[in-house]
Amino acid sequence: MVTVLSDAYIIGAGETKFGELWEKSLRELAVEAGLRAVENAGIYSRDVEVLYGSNSLAGIINGQENIGALLSDFSGIAENHIPAIRIEASTASGGAAVRQAYLAVKSGEYDLVMVGGVEKMTDVYGSETLDLTSSVLDREWEAFFGGTPAALAAITARKYMADFKVDKEALAMISVNDHLNASKNPDAHYRNKITIEQAMNSTPVAEPLNLMDCSPITDGAAAILVASEKYMKKNKLDGIRILSSADAQDYLAVHSRKSMYGLDSAKIASQKALSKAGMKIDDVSFVELHDSYSIYGLLELEDLGFAEKGKAKDLVYDEIKLNGRIPVNPSGGLKAKGNPFGATGVGQFVEAYMQLKEKAGERQVKGAKNAMLHSMGGTGSMSVVHMVGDA
Amino acid sequence: MVTVLSDAYIIGAGETKFGELWEKSLRELAVEAGLRAVENAGIYSRDVEVLYGSNSLAGIINGQENIGALLSDFSGIAENHIPAIRIEASTASGGAAVRQAYLAVKSGEYDLVMVGGVEKMTDVYGSETLDLTSSVLDREWEAFFGGTPAALAAITARKYMADFKVDKEALAMISVNDHLNASKNPDAHYRNKITIEQAMNSTPVAEPLNLMDCSPITDGAAAILVASEKYMKKNKLDGIRILSSADAQDYLAVHSRKSMYGLDSAKIASQKALSKAGMKIDDVSFVELHDSYSIYGLLELEDLGFAEKGKAKDLVYDEIKLNGRIPVNPSGGLKAKGNPFGATGVGQFVEAYMQLKEKAGERQVKGAKNAMLHSMGGTGSMSVVHMVGDA
Repeated sequence: MVTVLSDAYIIGAGETKFGELWEKSLRELAVEAGLRAVENAGIYSRDVEVLYGSNSLAGIINGQENIGALLSDFSGIAENHIPAIRIEASTASGGAAVRQAYLAVKSGEYDLVMVGGVEKMTDVYGSETLDLTSSVLDREWEAFFGGTPAALAAITARKYMADFKVDKEALAMISVNDHLNASKNPDAHYRNKITIEQAMNSTPVAEPLNLMDCSPITDGAAAILVASEKYMKKNKLDGIRILSSADAQDYLAVHSRKSMYGLDSAKIASQKALSKAGMKIDDVSFVELHDSYSIYGLLELEDLGFAEKGKAKDLVYDEIKLNGRIPVNPSGGLKAKGNPFGATGVGQFVEAYMQLKEKAGERQVKGAKNAMLHSMGGTGSMSVVHMVGDA
Repeated sequence: MVTVLSDAYIIGAGETKFGELWEKSLRELAVEAGLRAVENAGIYSRDVEVLYGSNSLAGIINGQENIGALLSDFSGIAENHIPAIRIEASTASGGAAVRQAYLAVKSGEYDLVMVGGVEKMTDVYGSETLDLTSSVLDREWEAFFGGTPAALAAITARKYMADFKVDKEALAMISVNDHLNASKNPDAHYRNKITIEQAMNSTPVAEPLNLMDCSPITDGAAAILVASEKYMKKNKLDGIRILSSADAQDYLAVHSRKSMYGLDSAKIASQKALSKAGMKIDDVSFVELHDSYSIYGLLELEDLGFAEKGKAKDLVYDEIKLNGRIPVNPSGGLKAKGNPFGATGVGQFVEAYMQLKEKAGERQVKGAKNAMLHSMGGTGSMSVVHMVGDA
């Protein structure tokens, strides 16, 4: 069977405000984001052929598995018997779900796929949130012995700071930059700017990390529509091209990895994504990265390829700003836009769509041609990297 | 870009024994099945390019999300940075994961994909099992008001039996057939044969369903290897062809559906799978269906296309036997082989592989050319149907 492998394009994107959204349920958030994406694309929702739902913790937080069916039902697309499947790769679920959509379009079986990411983290059905978020770690060998995401990030930060003579201020600058950008993003969880002093002197969480080094517990949803070139042209739509998609794994438990501060999954996924797109790291216009803790912002800048190991500290004052050499997290990132696990990675695509369509308002990265989007699972167990836009 | 879309083949399959496996953990079960599949295929595990993990309830039962990473880590493939993603569609997770593998191969991005399904249901981390399995229902509109999978199946059975004058014996025969076949399957959870009398007089669970109408709480894992034609030929392997793959959705909540006993998702997925394979229902050699409750065995026989609505009762005495017109569940089905949610659907492929390779021993369906495999989510919210073998 000879046929043309389809390129994949993002033809619409939408998200809810991120935040503590007590008045909205999991399903309401998801449908709100989905409808915005449909409206944004200017298509009929009945054209959607399959829904990939990205969600990390609804089973354990909301007592609700079978998320695909839930969203399909509540959004009304179940009436058309559109299949809905949940993709889970912990906090990398968003990137992983977009990758499945990309493969689904490339397989030739689908012309229009919706990816919807959602997480409702502030209504807890079962046990406490700290314990629940630890379910993304190795339950038996990390969480059971008291490891939490914050504690593991803190241990990593301590060793990294000692080995490379990095001071606390470099970590703080990742959060300062996120908050500055988020102040210009109406969908962000926190829109207040913070100073270096505020970032460095906030309440300790797990030394050396304090409150301003940690992404918040956020509710929210984000959705994009991925279409084949055929569907896009037939319907006279336009979109942002998915240039490449790649993923890579590392050991789940931090203690199993080759290095505590080398994110091998990010390194490999980034190299694969750049290579598939025929690009070099210097060709990247801006990056949305997964700074669930400020330390990861530094590590990712290095392992994605923007700096040598131990040298990210040289980028954090100027280069990562909106008008810098490599703008980081124009959306506000995980620290300030927020981190609703299943929605976080999909939200990066919403930001890229807005930026590359030059609709990002005050936080517009001028002249941006493309973006690198990095969705990371847990403490680095998985990385999914996409390049979108023009090479 | 013009290229040849790849056909997909199952080149290896393996599973653990299904049962109450107190001595084995979630990760141990998964790796045991994976290694058996690799050994069975005669390949190197380092050739695997991506792992799709099928799991429904580990977050809520075992406090473990990020299942892909867990399995990748423990199996050792994390060393090679092989990405691992979890696919969840409640009890249809197995079929859904195989479908993603099929799309991944067809997309041209992968030549060798492992699908591993696992569920560890007898070690409960949090609340009680009944409540946990209800997480596959609509938590807010079914489970919260006391609906359980058994209760919803019972209501459906009651209405079906009244409308079509079907007696309890027809339901019982589904379980009698499962137990007869399972008695010949060394991997089955229950290998005892049961009589019609035993099936009909067992302990009531939710009238009219009793213990012998309900699939058990099972631990287990199953794995298959899906390869492109290119990989298969290059390595001089042989395999079972995936003729077609299709899925369809219905409303999550039973009360939202058009009919209580019409499984629209099964109907549509079956029609699509047959049509894509260029086959008619009479061409099917045998079927593995998703009889989590005996009533669903009858409903699926009808909605998959083997009988008119209300007429499945005419098939249950002779036609569904191993040597009958349409053998049902040679493996022993969900009632007797067992129902480890995430592994159930993948286990159907293991059975099909064994049958079509004529390695099914005493339970061999003689002259079987192909199989229809039906993986169903919850009470029918999703159906995934695959046709495998020769058309």
